[in-house]
Amino acid sequence: MSLDAVLSRIDADLDPALERLFDLLRIPSISTDPEYKADCDRAAEWLVKDLNAMGIAAERRETPGHPMVVAHVDGDGPHLLFYGHYDVQPVDPLELWHRDPFDPAIEEVDGQKVIRARGASDDKGQLMTFVEACRAYMAEHGKLPCKVTFFFEGEEESGSPSLVPFMKENAAELTADVALICDTTMAAPGLPSIATQLRGMLKEEFTLKGPRMDLHSGLYGGPALNPLREISKLIASFHDETGRVAVDGFYDGVPELSDELRRQWADAGFDETTFLGRIGMSRAHGEEAFSAMEQVWARPTLEVNGMWGGYTGAGTKTVIPAEAHCKLTCRLVGDQDPAQVRDALRAHIEARLPVDTEVVWHGSLDGAPASVMDTSRPEFELARGALSDEWSREAVFAGMGGSIPIAGYFKTILGMEPMLIGFAKDDDAIHSPNEKYDVESFHKGIRSWARILDALGQAAP
Amino acid sequence: MSLDAVLSRIDADLDPALERLFDLLRIPSISTDPEYKADCDRAAEWLVKDLNAMGIAAERRETPGHPMVVAHVDGDGPHLLFYGHYDVQPVDPLELWHRDPFDPAIEEVDGQKVIRARGASDDKGQLMTFVEACRAYMAEHGKLPCKVTFFFEGEEESGSPSLVPFMKENAAELTADVALICDTTMAAPGLPSIATQLRGMLKEEFTLKGPRMDLHSGLYGGPALNPLREISKLIASFHDETGRVAVDGFYDGVPELSDELRRQWADAGFDETTFLGRIGMSRAHGEEAFSAMEQVWARPTLEVNGMWGGYTGAGTKTVIPAEAHCKLTCRLVGDQDPAQVRDALRAHIEARLPVDTEVVWHGSLDGAPASVMDTSRPEFELARGALSDEWSREAVFAGMGGSIPIAGYFKTILGMEPMLIGFAKDDDAIHSPNEKYDVESFHKGIRSWARILDALGQAAP
Repeated sequence: MSLDAVLSRIDADLDPALERLFDLLRIPSISTDPEYKADCDRAAEWLVKDLNAMGIAAERRETPGHPMVVAHVDGDGPHLLFYGHYDVQPVDPLELWHRDPFDPAIEEVDGQKVIRARGASDDKGQLMTFVEACRAYMAEHGKLPCKVTFFFEGEEESGSPSLVPFMKENAAELTADVALICDTTMAAPGLPSIATQLRGMLKEEFTLKGPRMDLHSGLYGGPALNPLREISKLIASFHDETGRVAVDGFYDGVPELSDELRRQWADAGFDETTFLGRIGMSRAHGEEAFSAMEQVWARPTLEVNGMWGGYTGAGTKTVIPAEAHCKLTCRLVGDQDPAQVRDALRAHIEARLPVDTEVVWHGSLDGAPASVMDTSRPEFELARGALSDEWSREAVFAGMGGSIPIAGYFKTILGMEPMLIGFAKDDDAIHSPNEKYDVESFHKGIRSWARILDALGQAAP
Repeated sequence: MSLDAVLSRIDADLDPALERLFDLLRIPSISTDPEYKADCDRAAEWLVKDLNAMGIAAERRETPGHPMVVAHVDGDGPHLLFYGHYDVQPVDPLELWHRDPFDPAIEEVDGQKVIRARGASDDKGQLMTFVEACRAYMAEHGKLPCKVTFFFEGEEESGSPSLVPFMKENAAELTADVALICDTTMAAPGLPSIATQLRGMLKEEFTLKGPRMDLHSGLYGGPALNPLREISKLIASFHDETGRVAVDGFYDGVPELSDELRRQWADAGFDETTFLGRIGMSRAHGEEAFSAMEQVWARPTLEVNGMWGGYTGAGTKTVIPAEAHCKLTCRLVGDQDPAQVRDALRAHIEARLPVDTEVVWHGSLDGAPASVMDTSRPEFELARGALSDEWSREAVFAGMGGSIPIAGYFKTILGMEPMLIGFAKDDDAIHSPNEKYDVESFHKGIRSWARILDALGQAAP
């Protein structure tokens, strides 16, 4: 079957594809606000009808929340499950939008055409890149090169409460060879990427107790231990002078970065200066032995997210407080075990507790290990090749600094490797006013999926 | 003139003296609450009448706030100015009092008789120890052994707004050889003491700025500098491992503790274990080379009184904050100069500022040097001898950890050395519900002043 014909059809069909996306964008499917429940229903119905129009028997499937949309297309190649979400974030503060968030339009920004609307990037625009690729493929060839299951949810922006139960109840139906997720950004503008490692997280919080009560610094300053000073010393002990976490056992399970990934990332030509400059940094402050990208994508962190104690109001209060507080999170990679990291951290602090202090732990074991995809599966290299062809640039297996719980669910509940391939950009303003999606992302995104479907069709089923 | 006769008269006159104090305690002279303005007036009038009854021409002197009471008694010896205040703290929370705060009574606590009422200790009871000593002396001898100026204010508990202007306007009238202030505690129960060194204070506050905005710890954790970590390192650098302040130049002007004071304090038999145990400390945490008492009375400190940054609410927020905050105060001793200490502290921090951070200083030069009395004046040793005689225990020249601004005013505005001699105890619950003053403090306080007046009468005028 000819891929070129499909790509030509995609190019020719871009305006109608945009019109279809605009139709979907006009539905204010804000999942978190009950006032928009009917709109979420409408968005699900719209997707059912759109798939039906392609000759695909899609179904609306009820949940305690907003409906799922599920559809199956038989085919010869491997079985792919495609996931996206049709719900969107609220639009407040509305006054910061320069147009109605649900009245999409093409705008031109710095010579780039962009689709402006709530959901343009997250995730309706991205979701439709896959749908349009299938539409073009089917129009040209009457079938798809792979077996495909479409799986759309309407609760992603409100915590996906129905997702795991639905996955468990319909495990047989939803299990495929790999899961495709189109809800991420490209690692850098114009750099095609498959996110293959997502950091996990451990949450911890503690109170350091010192004097029996708040003390007057005149009457007791000197002999009284000051918990603010002591908690500062503890926090200062978390890292060594090279930026490495100095907690014994913290790095257990952290893999070496493979030479192949290091090469891919080095060759990708990230603009670290721009990345860092945007946040006011002149250099990367993490582990010295790693680049900024490696620090975010492949290395664990221990960050203090909040600390407080004593008097924090206006003016002066000469107090030595009875206690001080610290909230922290660790980003985990590879095989780091959240429970073991928590124990190591607690042991580190308890070994350094000064006399006359006590530590009270508030963290539950609310953590998740990293997700590391099995890139030895042939689908990963095939997709990477297809993306490289489309973007005329070697695609990378990228890391992602944050967690994507849904990717983990596909792995742990359905036993599928998720391939996260997205075309969004960092400046898309998702969750913010004036969300946009580059027309280039939409157009080349559709073309990318057509190439990926074609390539995966050549893999063994 | 016979001191013994005066002391015998004081013993015999204790019950009427208590009745007079009760009369004064019944007046709810809460200076900070406008509703009690007339009561403050009544308390001033009561003192005028009481002095008049002793044959002393006392005057009520108006101020923009509550009136002062001023009286002069001529005499042969040195000129003493006695300061006390007739106003009291508010009584909230009233429900925690076990009796009406303005219905004084003698109660027995652990075999000790105590006077229970608001103001019993702070400062009506203490003020009346001096008045009663003068009454007994005059009744026995028809005159006092020194020239005495009585100076009572009614705004001490509301910040003494009229005091400095009044001192300046009446400088000639109020200037004496030494100022006696009876508004302090004994250094330890039963240990007579003259507070001769009060620590000064410097207030400082700063913000450490890092990233340009609050950052997501998934997207930027690693390369982004974390101001909470960096401020902790700065705070941890303020002290070395022996508890000494590690800021260059901080100790400039800090005097050696004299052998004589060290001996007095060592011989005084302070119960450090009890002092520390009360606040939950098993040992003194200040400079290792000094005892707890020396740390509080004679050594400077640098204390963090408040610090905060990032997310401090319930749950988790994976933020790397843009800034962190710290409030601190230094207690100063000897000739430490607040401006110089501030400069040293700022230089310490600025020398350690990590790249990509900025410090913003919020402190104004709102500081005061320590007050160190000139104990070489003969009045100090004479008073110490008199106190030692009364309490059958060697009186000490004590330090005080906190500041007493009024003592400083006598020094800086009127050029007098203040002698702070008080008989209150740490458990008097001043400013709290169920304030009390031991009958022993009142009785032996009166006897102490009689002895001091007698002893000072022998000093050259």
